[in-house]
Amino acid sequence: MKLFHSANSPFVRQCLVAAHELGLAERIELVPAAAHPINRDRAVVEKNPLGKIPALITDDGSVLHDSRVIVDFLNDLGGGDLVPVGDARWSALTGQSLADGMLDAAVLARYETALRPEALRWNDWLQGQLEKVASGLLELESRAMHFGDRVDIGTIAFGCMLGYLDFRFAQLEWRESHPNTAAWFTWFGGRDSMVATKAPSA
Amino acid sequence: MKLFHSANSPFVRQCLVAAHELGLAERIELVPAAAHPINRDRAVVEKNPLGKIPALITDDGSVLHDSRVIVDFLNDLGGGDLVPVGDARWSALTGQSLADGMLDAAVLARYETALRPEALRWNDWLQGQLEKVASGLLELESRAMHFGDRVDIGTIAFGCMLGYLDFRFAQLEWRESHPNTAAWFTWFGGRDSMVATKAPSA
Repeated sequence: MKLFHSANSPFVRQCLVAAHELGLAERIELVPAAAHPINRDRAVVEKNPLGKIPALITDDGSVLHDSRVIVDFLNDLGGGDLVPVGDARWSALTGQSLADGMLDAAVLARYETALRPEALRWNDWLQGQLEKVASGLLELESRAMHFGDRVDIGTIAFGCMLGYLDFRFAQLEWRESHPNTAAWFTWFGGRDSMVATKAPSA
Repeated sequence: MKLFHSANSPFVRQCLVAAHELGLAERIELVPAAAHPINRDRAVVEKNPLGKIPALITDDGSVLHDSRVIVDFLNDLGGGDLVPVGDARWSALTGQSLADGMLDAAVLARYETALRPEALRWNDWLQGQLEKVASGLLELESRAMHFGDRVDIGTIAFGCMLGYLDFRFAQLEWRESHPNTAAWFTWFGGRDSMVATKAPSA
């Protein structure tokens, strides 16, 4: 399998963490990609018309995206239990959706401050995105104390989201006001799968 | 069940189309919501920290989001076959991801032109988002001729995406250059589930 990859993408990281947890990491060849919302990477667009990463090329040549689909596929391929069944399924999937939505907001906040020309920035927009992150962190704080040793699509997504905040939004200092989440992430972030996939400059 | 709802949201529509196809529409009470990226709807935020719709309150009080999770849940509840199994699963899920990514891009393009103050608009950003829609339409054009009578998470997402383009981006006139897609949508858009969920002003 081949995975269009950037070491800085939290969505790519979700796939890699899942692959490590499932023992599949060595079967995935990483293909460097420069996904960008304006200067689109043509090699990626050819496989995924959205030009976004991650995108996975399976051994039979099929193209799968996005991270949710790829993690689900890897779990199936590896016969894993990262996708809970029964009632726990909906809570885990909604957790994944919350973490992904926080990441979407954080990435839009970053585009607003690091990509858009300074004269065209809109503070109301930036604050709206950061509010989503803040509301999500509050919700996570009430959930994290019940995570126990869960390793699934939900906790993997939360872990990669927190790693991205540390990487790009260190000034938020989220640990100070979210002690339960901080305690959980000390454990989860120390897993081999997380250590092996940390952004190099983080 | 209660669904936070706006008649204009293509993501809400995916849930409603699925509910109609599954015979569950009458079990869902629609709760009007004014989701907005800056002026967030506090009633929604209380249930979904992202402040986004759709969000579903199940009969036992659980909150589920986003549209992918809700459609998956409804399919399970209704014992439906909107989520294919086996190899067809990954193609359908990637189709859903493509349609959702096109919608995300279209919604960002709309925010750029209809919400952001005129002096702060960035044409490069707008064009980048519209390119994603255009590349996605090209891909869909090569797929649509093979859809047959498939009604699943993939085709529902494509249908709602095309409905949104008709609603908000009629000037794209996508039918002219995408005849296979146009032919398919003439059929799919005429389904009872699509007619019952069309945006009132479209």
